[in-house]
Amino acid sequence: MKLSQLNTSTGTRLNGASVVLVTARDAGVDVCFANPGTTEMPFVGALDFVPGVRPILGLFEGVCTGAADGYGRMTGKPAMTLLHLGPGHANGIANLHNARRARTPILNIVGDHARDHLKYDAPLTSDIESLARPVSIWYRSVAHQAELSRDTADAIAAAVGPQRGVATLVLPVDLQSATVRESVCPAAVRPAPVSFDAARVAEVADLLRRGVSAVLLMGGRALSARGQRAAARIAAATGATCFSETFPARTERGGGLPDIDRLPYFPEPARAVLADKTVVLAGALPPVTYFGYEGIPGELARPEDIVTLAEPGDAADEALDMLADHIGATADVSGVDVEDWPVEDGLLTPQAVGRLLVNALPDQAVVSVEGGTCGYPFVTASARARRHTILTNTGGAIGQGLPVALGAAVACPDRRVFALQSDGSAQYTIQALWTMARERLPIVMLIASNRRYGILQTELARSGLPADTPHASRLTLLDDPPIDWMALSRGYGVPGERATTVRELSLALADALAHTEGPRLIEMCLS
Amino acid sequence: MKLSQLNTSTGTRLNGASVVLVTARDAGVDVCFANPGTTEMPFVGALDFVPGVRPILGLFEGVCTGAADGYGRMTGKPAMTLLHLGPGHANGIANLHNARRARTPILNIVGDHARDHLKYDAPLTSDIESLARPVSIWYRSVAHQAELSRDTADAIAAAVGPQRGVATLVLPVDLQSATVRESVCPAAVRPAPVSFDAARVAEVADLLRRGVSAVLLMGGRALSARGQRAAARIAAATGATCFSETFPARTERGGGLPDIDRLPYFPEPARAVLADKTVVLAGALPPVTYFGYEGIPGELARPEDIVTLAEPGDAADEALDMLADHIGATADVSGVDVEDWPVEDGLLTPQAVGRLLVNALPDQAVVSVEGGTCGYPFVTASARARRHTILTNTGGAIGQGLPVALGAAVACPDRRVFALQSDGSAQYTIQALWTMARERLPIVMLIASNRRYGILQTELARSGLPADTPHASRLTLLDDPPIDWMALSRGYGVPGERATTVRELSLALADALAHTEGPRLIEMCLS
Repeated sequence: MKLSQLNTSTGTRLNGASVVLVTARDAGVDVCFANPGTTEMPFVGALDFVPGVRPILGLFEGVCTGAADGYGRMTGKPAMTLLHLGPGHANGIANLHNARRARTPILNIVGDHARDHLKYDAPLTSDIESLARPVSIWYRSVAHQAELSRDTADAIAAAVGPQRGVATLVLPVDLQSATVRESVCPAAVRPAPVSFDAARVAEVADLLRRGVSAVLLMGGRALSARGQRAAARIAAATGATCFSETFPARTERGGGLPDIDRLPYFPEPARAVLADKTVVLAGALPPVTYFGYEGIPGELARPEDIVTLAEPGDAADEALDMLADHIGATADVSGVDVEDWPVEDGLLTPQAVGRLLVNALPDQAVVSVEGGTCGYPFVTASARARRHTILTNTGGAIGQGLPVALGAAVACPDRRVFALQSDGSAQYTIQALWTMARERLPIVMLIASNRRYGILQTELARSGLPADTPHASRLTLLDDPPIDWMALSRGYGVPGERATTVRELSLALADALAHTEGPRLIEMCLS
Repeated sequence: MKLSQLNTSTGTRLNGASVVLVTARDAGVDVCFANPGTTEMPFVGALDFVPGVRPILGLFEGVCTGAADGYGRMTGKPAMTLLHLGPGHANGIANLHNARRARTPILNIVGDHARDHLKYDAPLTSDIESLARPVSIWYRSVAHQAELSRDTADAIAAAVGPQRGVATLVLPVDLQSATVRESVCPAAVRPAPVSFDAARVAEVADLLRRGVSAVLLMGGRALSARGQRAAARIAAATGATCFSETFPARTERGGGLPDIDRLPYFPEPARAVLADKTVVLAGALPPVTYFGYEGIPGELARPEDIVTLAEPGDAADEALDMLADHIGATADVSGVDVEDWPVEDGLLTPQAVGRLLVNALPDQAVVSVEGGTCGYPFVTASARARRHTILTNTGGAIGQGLPVALGAAVACPDRRVFALQSDGSAQYTIQALWTMARERLPIVMLIASNRRYGILQTELARSGLPADTPHASRLTLLDDPPIDWMALSRGYGVPGERATTVRELSLALADALAHTEGPRLIEMCLS
């Protein structure tokens, strides 16, 4: 549909916001996670005028940006956000930070004051560019009406291009509402092709043939089913070990795939598995410690011990396949059989939670994992699950798990989505529950309720500090008052159940899975 | 207490975080609104080591920064925040934006990676400076151990200095945990004196004597009791009219003060009250429209019609007093008598809500107002209340009202604090409820529950757009699902009541006021 057709068919005035919407829609953008304000009203009006883009309201901007991240990871194409000026964008930054680390394409639309209003420094005026650059691979504020379509196309091209990531497009409200001539036409948008460097494959093949002791460190497309199978073939043929990066944007898992562990989080065990090895990067970055610790090198492997097979943006799975062929590892290697874990009844432990969830996952489930308490035990156990996709917190800005689950559920209506979520991090974007209920998304949320910031108590201990002194304990414990998850969940229109034993969690999971009309929340009370 | 004494008395290792804390404490900083992460653990440990700073945990950073704003507005001195790296700071930006507009002093402490870890671009690394500059009047990342105390003192001096505002101090974790020599001593901090320009007073006095028709537009200290009384004297003597800026950081009100109205929000009525007048700025900025509207000038008064009596940071109340004396307006002018509003029973309307709250306010109450639905009717009615302080949303970044109430309650344990809060904006920092419950703060929250973004429906109409088309209505209505405020409140440990009639709200207010052990929430169901 051309803009001129739109105009003719409805008789409504065509405005600048419609130009942006038509351009984006014709490039494949079909959802808009929105928390608009006054400066986005022409855009809101245009959503009713331009068919084909589904607006989804969030009560907080971090819900919108996290949902766009989840959507983009599952579809490979950008969702649109709609945020209100600098402060609205600012509320979305934390999850845009995670999206940046995940290399997720997002068309981040931020409304702004009318161009001739900025000079007055009205209350909501701020330096949007300074706030947006740190999380954006591309930034532009539209300067002229005639550039609305081209700028939108440029933004999408940047988002899906070789660098993949967040493209921030600022739309002054006067341009959103500007009347547009019929001759303006949407620009075409084509994602950059994804490839790899065959010369590097040959180099790594030479190394492996010479018998170096290698670790394949996998990220990006290396963690597709194809990439993992290829890595397992290479490992079987050469004795190499395989690790996923610690917090991958997306991993396929279970359903007969090999069991590829994650590189440990803490530096000591991570260094142990990489020691005296040649580290072959397949879509992963050179491994560094998550935080700097006194007396521990930041680099987990020496630069001279690292070779790059494929960059994070490359077709690392194809590179691994070619590498497997080069070294003559022709046979497919069998993975892990799908099999239920035996779980004895008793009080809930993180290990029991992980195994029960593994047993419950239907084929093609998606699991958004945030928080270490149950996250690590689940991933350890999940190689035996039916085929599923795991999404993790790539950038460490917490409050990502629930919105990402929301976006994944919008992206994949035919797949069951789970959020395995720690209680502390859930609070940062708790408003996600409301949008899940509003959109009737059958997401199953499992809240690991241990009423503490467990990681901080661990880190206090690592720093040689006591966790039981009055202030330190009060800054890491969430037990006063305990959050009443059943009430909170009901507050947002989400039915909840509480489980304290293995049997109760089994029943609650079965109950939640039988329910397909909307979200369910299960509070898992850990002792 | 010197650092050396601290060191001796406990035998604990003195670290860089302690130096920052002692410097801040000795400058009068006695509370820290904190949401720490791994890179702030030495600081958390030091809070137990350095007595005199009360840490208060927030479940979300916007709660911490908004609370620091409320605290600073009530005390005039900075609270400290403690935020985790760029993403943690980012979650606090919206309320720092409001604090910037309120000119509230805040010592915004942001932890960072160890200095030698930044080069690895680990997952949580980001450009903190780019994120912090737009909301900070001062920014520094501590570069050397020897500069910890001086940099802290500089930050506080900037926060309380002539520009007043947010000073962001970034503390790399390695400097927080660095061992410090005993000879390091805290720096002294002295707030800049506040004054005004007597020559300007003489100029304005001349103008008024010549009989110009003036509007006094008041902000900052002009809205103290002294400033308002002086303005009323000037008005009585000259026929000038008085207006408060539309969203003042802090206004004293009631208890016999004159009834000074706020400059209207929308441009048409604002222009009407300023038309053909000389606008005398007393601590207010030149008036501009909140948003730019097509065909309406952004400036509400022509520059040639504006004279400045006192700048926003000046002692505008003293300037007004001198002006009143200069023009011979010696007699004190009587204000509005304290008197209950008559309110008939019936379904709740915004007007009834405003009047009931006015009747219920005890002397010296503090009211944090966010949202127009009930906010305007309350302020209109509140001249007849007992003496109280009103805090409004200065920067338009919503999600400010509950955290500001929280900070005000921490600042003023002897005053009753109310939050008159719209339902939509409450959601952005809803986690404030938990901290209120945790700290047993007897805040009374009144949620105006109309289940919509009322302002956006108004703005759609102003743009000539229908609000009842499918997407526009769905992006401005919050009724599917309706938020269950009783459940949500209980979820965070706050007892709640629901009121749908005048009588129910009266009873709920009386009930809440009798309760002094912690917060109460009243959902006011507006039809």
